[in-house]
Amino acid sequence: MAKSTQLADNEVFRAYATYAAIVLLKMMLMSLITAYYRMTRKAFVNPEDTASFGKGDNAKKYLRTDADVERVRRGHLNDLENIVPFVGIGLLYALSGPELSTALLHFRIFTGARILHTFAYLIPLPQPGRGLSWAVGYAVTFSMAYKVLKTVLLL
Amino acid sequence: MAKSTQLADNEVFRAYATYAAIVLLKMMLMSLITAYYRMTRKAFVNPEDTASFGKGDNAKKYLRTDADVERVRRGHLNDLENIVPFVGIGLLYALSGPELSTALLHFRIFTGARILHTFAYLIPLPQPGRGLSWAVGYAVTFSMAYKVLKTVLLL
Amino acid sequence: MAKSTQLADNEVFRAYATYAAIVLLKMMLMSLITAYYRMTRKAFVNPEDTASFGKGDNAKKYLRTDADVERVRRGHLNDLENIVPFVGIGLLYALSGPELSTALLHFRIFTGARILHTFAYLIPLPQPGRGLSWAVGYAVTFSMAYKVLKTVLLL
Repeated sequence: MAKSTQLADNEVFRAYATYAAIVLLKMMLMSLITAYYRMTRKAFVNPEDTASFGKGDNAKKYLRTDADVERVRRGHLNDLENIVPFVGIGLLYALSGPELSTALLHFRIFTGARILHTFAYLIPLPQPGRGLSWAVGYAVTFSMAYKVLKTVLLL
Repeated sequence: MAKSTQLADNEVFRAYATYAAIVLLKMMLMSLITAYYRMTRKAFVNPEDTASFGKGDNAKKYLRTDADVERVRRGHLNDLENIVPFVGIGLLYALSGPELSTALLHFRIFTGARILHTFAYLIPLPQPGRGLSWAVGYAVTFSMAYKVLKTVLLL
Repeated sequence: MAKSTQLADNEVFRAYATYAAIVLLKMMLMSLITAYYRMTRKAFVNPEDTASFGKGDNAKKYLRTDADVERVRRGHLNDLENIVPFVGIGLLYALSGPELSTALLHFRIFTGARILHTFAYLIPLPQPGRGLSWAVGYAVTFSMAYKVLKTVLLL
């Protein structure tokens, strides 16, 4: 297991692993929030999910969309669209030999921006709160991609 | 290519690569199932996809949603929401130096749970079949994230 | 940082990093195109996004779906469904020791196919333009997964 030890010895990689795990856990949390709203708002999409409420029309009335549920789902999809590129490009970035302080700056700002984005979406905060937090995370990922391409470019 | 050989020599990494490839292929399979249902149910969403059925109203009637198509699409999105964190966190976990037997246990349970989840969604099985298979996969990913953060934490 | 240098010295890994960064940036571009269409078509989904257009019914009329916006969003979701498996399986493939020329062939064809797919979706081109470009990318990812499983299989 020499390999693993090497990576765990690389501080930039350790920082990447820490923040990648945190933002992926944050993204997974959206599933629980969706489930919570579906159950408290009684708004389901699969007929088999409403079977415990009885049969026929009694159960069918819970097959509906709810504004709060849809809001969380949009936040979850936005996480997929933004956290997935961060995790992918961030790995390449961590392996491209950046300074630890520069790397930490990227990872911290991205993670903070995405946590803010979730609050801005779910509360919801007035715009441009959500828009700005989205743009900051986007810019950080773009900056890492630039460093990766500058370092490794082989077309 | 010393690097590649090293990774291919690391048994935990080989196990990760095997199961990550399997669950990603399983996720890709959802695209084919969606296409199959779209064609057999004649339910499309893009006007250019129905051009072969004629022009005007004759083609427009196939621009509709179908319960089976939507069900597969929800299963596909659920895969994205759960398999992507597994692949990301699983890579960090494989590089954090776990025991081979413990790692295999995590990878096998997750893969089995997600395959069950797909069957539970598409058949569909009565609840809590789908809910439980989802929760098992979620818990496995969470357990790996805990091990990663405990090993590499650098904030 | 011996580790990073090693990876940056591995030509197959450098090629992977280059193309993975390119397709992830292409996927991120879909967010900007969605935002552009939402603003030019004035079609929003969150009430807080229309607050600058006034209050009450004046703002509410912009909470609507627009065919162009939905088209970009479908293209974005299709990217998630296809580019994410490429990035995950491609990493394992790059570490499984393929020939540089074979690897470059895979990466170049996938990247070209996905760029074509985006044009085919957004213009839109008549079918089977979009279908074929999707299938080519799918087949490339499948081919890489086959090589990975053949090399590392450990169940």
